[in-house]
Amino acid sequence: MFSAITLTTDFGTRDSYVAQMKGEILKIAPAARIIDVTHAIPSGDVLRGALALRAIVGSFPEGTIHVAVVDPGVGSERRLVAVEMGEQRFVGPDNGLFGLIAREHPPRRIARLDNPAAWRAVADDSQRSRTFHGREILAPVAARWSLDVEITALGSLTTEPLQDAPLPKPQSTAGGWRGEVIAVDHFGNLITNIDRAELANADPTAWSIGIAGHSLRSLHGYYAEVAAGVPLALIGSSGLLEIAVNQGSAAEQLAATIGTPVICRRGD
Amino acid sequence: MFSAITLTTDFGTRDSYVAQMKGEILKIAPAARIIDVTHAIPSGDVLRGALALRAIVGSFPEGTIHVAVVDPGVGSERRLVAVEMGEQRFVGPDNGLFGLIAREHPPRRIARLDNPAAWRAVADDSQRSRTFHGREILAPVAARWSLDVEITALGSLTTEPLQDAPLPKPQSTAGGWRGEVIAVDHFGNLITNIDRAELANADPTAWSIGIAGHSLRSLHGYYAEVAAGVPLALIGSSGLLEIAVNQGSAAEQLAATIGTPVICRRGD
Amino acid sequence: MFSAITLTTDFGTRDSYVAQMKGEILKIAPAARIIDVTHAIPSGDVLRGALALRAIVGSFPEGTIHVAVVDPGVGSERRLVAVEMGEQRFVGPDNGLFGLIAREHPPRRIARLDNPAAWRAVADDSQRSRTFHGREILAPVAARWSLDVEITALGSLTTEPLQDAPLPKPQSTAGGWRGEVIAVDHFGNLITNIDRAELANADPTAWSIGIAGHSLRSLHGYYAEVAAGVPLALIGSSGLLEIAVNQGSAAEQLAATIGTPVICRRGD
Repeated sequence: MFSAITLTTDFGTRDSYVAQMKGEILKIAPAARIIDVTHAIPSGDVLRGALALRAIVGSFPEGTIHVAVVDPGVGSERRLVAVEMGEQRFVGPDNGLFGLIAREHPPRRIARLDNPAAWRAVADDSQRSRTFHGREILAPVAARWSLDVEITALGSLTTEPLQDAPLPKPQSTAGGWRGEVIAVDHFGNLITNIDRAELANADPTAWSIGIAGHSLRSLHGYYAEVAAGVPLALIGSSGLLEIAVNQGSAAEQLAATIGTPVICRRGD
Repeated sequence: MFSAITLTTDFGTRDSYVAQMKGEILKIAPAARIIDVTHAIPSGDVLRGALALRAIVGSFPEGTIHVAVVDPGVGSERRLVAVEMGEQRFVGPDNGLFGLIAREHPPRRIARLDNPAAWRAVADDSQRSRTFHGREILAPVAARWSLDVEITALGSLTTEPLQDAPLPKPQSTAGGWRGEVIAVDHFGNLITNIDRAELANADPTAWSIGIAGHSLRSLHGYYAEVAAGVPLALIGSSGLLEIAVNQGSAAEQLAATIGTPVICRRGD
Repeated sequence: MFSAITLTTDFGTRDSYVAQMKGEILKIAPAARIIDVTHAIPSGDVLRGALALRAIVGSFPEGTIHVAVVDPGVGSERRLVAVEMGEQRFVGPDNGLFGLIAREHPPRRIARLDNPAAWRAVADDSQRSRTFHGREILAPVAARWSLDVEITALGSLTTEPLQDAPLPKPQSTAGGWRGEVIAVDHFGNLITNIDRAELANADPTAWSIGIAGHSLRSLHGYYAEVAAGVPLALIGSSGLLEIAVNQGSAAEQLAATIGTPVICRRGD
């Protein structure tokens, strides 16, 4: 089976940590296709990592292995896992990173990465870093998995469920929904925890969206439907309600950020 | 035919947008070679995108497909195109991004990307994002083209010319040229709109370059020809007149930036 | 022989310089696997480049070619070299970049890159940039070497030794070692010039580490052994003594940076 390996971390790109993981992958799977998702997850921010995985999962081919390393508990007793969800595969710490995928695609099999034969090959255990499981365990495990070993070769199967992601859920209100901004992208677009499905029971033009003292009428289709500099609400490319400013930054212009409340009201 | 696919965008590398495009490419062309040019084009800055494409085009093999997404008009009526220029291929919005390449390599064929069969495969049209044509249209079209379908499979051929790039042209003066800084690179080098060809009718040592109150004598060959900290003028690696400081930042030291005038005078 | 090509530069990722190198590699070796190590080496900082190479070299397969371009002397008389060290291969300027690798793996063969037939193919020499040897010489040479030509095809063998890296050595003291911080990583971890081997003659719990007015007891195994926000000393993933703060930035919290002294004392 063809399989790419994606990498999502909070390592940044200034140091060589990501390259060390890639080298360990190539030692085991010289033909692996490796794709960077992002290495700019804020340090230890599991929710941001979970959102990145949620955003990409539909865009990758069946069999892709997604390695995620946002792991404030590295070295402690949190477990590392390999998980089959939907048609894709996931490797990383079980700390909520995979929680958003699991809500939509319940895990079929979960293995705890307790088989050192699947880790980086070392002459003796003193050569293993206890601070860099990405290099010691996760990258080698992903590489072996891409060679079509069974998940059972990676560790013991377990039925203990995955941790859920720390994503706040929007609250249903009399007139609609009360949610919040959960991410701000590179363009300053404000991404909320209100899903396309939650706004589907009314005409797009019937919604009004309140955020940071502004009221935005209607759900739009794309940015250029309004003039440059004008704020608008729309369903973003990941299926979530998004507040944007055409050719500008909604985060700056509306002075909103992660945690800012967002109110959706059905008009009549 | 072998073909790599390059990506030039203003998406940044913090979010997962670029990875979504790469995943959609791999779905269609699992063996595609994907090369990032840059994702740090300032948001919506078509000229900077056009300059990046101009800088790389000579370094890639025949048949390479260059995908560029700097697209402030996404979703509106600006057209998306596939273009054959020189020995290479281009995919993106027709908003001036391809204008600098077209000046040197007039397009042989242009297709408007109006064939949904070449776009991302979806069960129904409501699943298409109207804000992320890079993922919905451009990446899939590039992937299919890399499999050696004809350009006519991507959309209707058109003879409407491409938009020119918004690059200011240097003005001829009695003693030489008057141009301006059009880009500042990572090292603080000031790249101008004055081409090597425009300075070829005099000996390099005969030119003097005026910028931001400084007068620089002669065109040099490389940075280390002057002492550390000393400014100099030279023809940069992309064939344009460049003002630099050996082991320093010309932008900082000369307090110059994009738009700063540059005067070239032939001595006697 | 399989071989990947890694790239370590101070070019940043904003411009297209790195992509130009990759394109030149693909022209010669269309199947080359190219891995970015980092392009965020501070401009001209040879020691930082040498440390990046030292950190990754153990993670890559035999035969890998590491191209490094941190080259404040570009165009001047410093020599460019290809070097065989350990089971891997290196291409770049001989300015100390390869000095840390050479300390552990003495070079077997060194070639001076004086054979223009191995450089970028050009119609005439005036087309060669004198400011961008990464594109003109280093990338093409690495690409040809990856096709399994002998090192002698790249240039003349030389016995002149490589330049050492400008890494300060820790000093032995009555009670242990006096070293310094040599790098600060993305997480704010402080990496020192004191090697694991230098601390091996006493029990980990017997060491106390002094830095910036703080005294840290014992060498720990991983970050989560202490509470969030607490500083600790440990051997980092590259085998060097590291000062960290669990879930925090040691650089910020201890107000320490490159050059800050670090004292290791054996207890009794």
